[in-house]
Amino acid sequence: VLARQIAEPFPAVTADSDALEAARLLAEGRLPGLIVTDADGHPRTVLPGSQVLRFVIPNYVQDDPPLARAYDEATADRLFMTLAGKPVRTLLPRERDREDLPIVDANATVMEVAAVMARMHSPVVAVVDKDDALVGAITVSRLLDLFLPAR
Amino acid sequence: VLARQIAEPFPAVTADSDALEAARLLAEGRLPGLIVTDADGHPRTVLPGSQVLRFVIPNYVQDDPPLARAYDEATADRLFMTLAGKPVRTLLPRERDREDLPIVDANATVMEVAAVMARMHSPVVAVVDKDDALVGAITVSRLLDLFLPAR
Repeated sequence: VLARQIAEPFPAVTADSDALEAARLLAEGRLPGLIVTDADGHPRTVLPGSQVLRFVIPNYVQDDPPLARAYDEATADRLFMTLAGKPVRTLLPRERDREDLPIVDANATVMEVAAVMARMHSPVVAVVDKDDALVGAITVSRLLDLFLPAR
Repeated sequence: VLARQIAEPFPAVTADSDALEAARLLAEGRLPGLIVTDADGHPRTVLPGSQVLRFVIPNYVQDDPPLARAYDEATADRLFMTLAGKPVRTLLPRERDREDLPIVDANATVMEVAAVMARMHSPVVAVVDKDDALVGAITVSRLLDLFLPAR
């Protein structure tokens, strides 16, 4: 079984997409992450939902979560509004080497996909064809579903 | 808004549950992770799907995923069968301090929940009451859904 045979359609945004719209896609689709492509549709990375929160929540609150109790709801709403008008690229962790991205070739075996997920701690990997175009994505739950023996 | 008001029912396993059954729960529910409790039902940690793969896939393959191409399907199936009969505890990363676990008090504010998710890069947090009993869980997509401004 190859990656292209089990890849499923998956929402993608570009690095220039509006960050608030990207966050809405995550929320509405109940997705573990979004695929981020460049302007030409080539996948560049995966944006996990927790990364959106890392952008929104001030660092000193991430370091000491009980400090968040001091925020009233209006302040919290304002923090999330800072996503509007920002490009998705501002939410991404700093650039890493391609070998360390959760992207696999369409001809990768499913074991190779599993190895990449394990290595990257990633809930989803993007699948690309030989032209680096997005074929779809594979989630860890889909992969487990395929591999686990019947009851 | 407090954590108890937005926590949803979520599958939990104990540290002694069968690892193969836990992996099936992840797969069938298309879940980003499972809550792991002790024998008394007190949440102890979250088991992300990728951690199951880290247990199954040999370390040298995680370090160099293309090596996975050498596995045929029968060998891959055998790797996943090693989950059967193992307790979930063998899949967990080594014990960490409670402050570094994705568990929040039922009276935590939603901002505090967001801060814990951001800090832990976790797609889900367990919510516990004052007796340390499981109230439910909050996923990052649910939290975003609540916080994002209307279109």
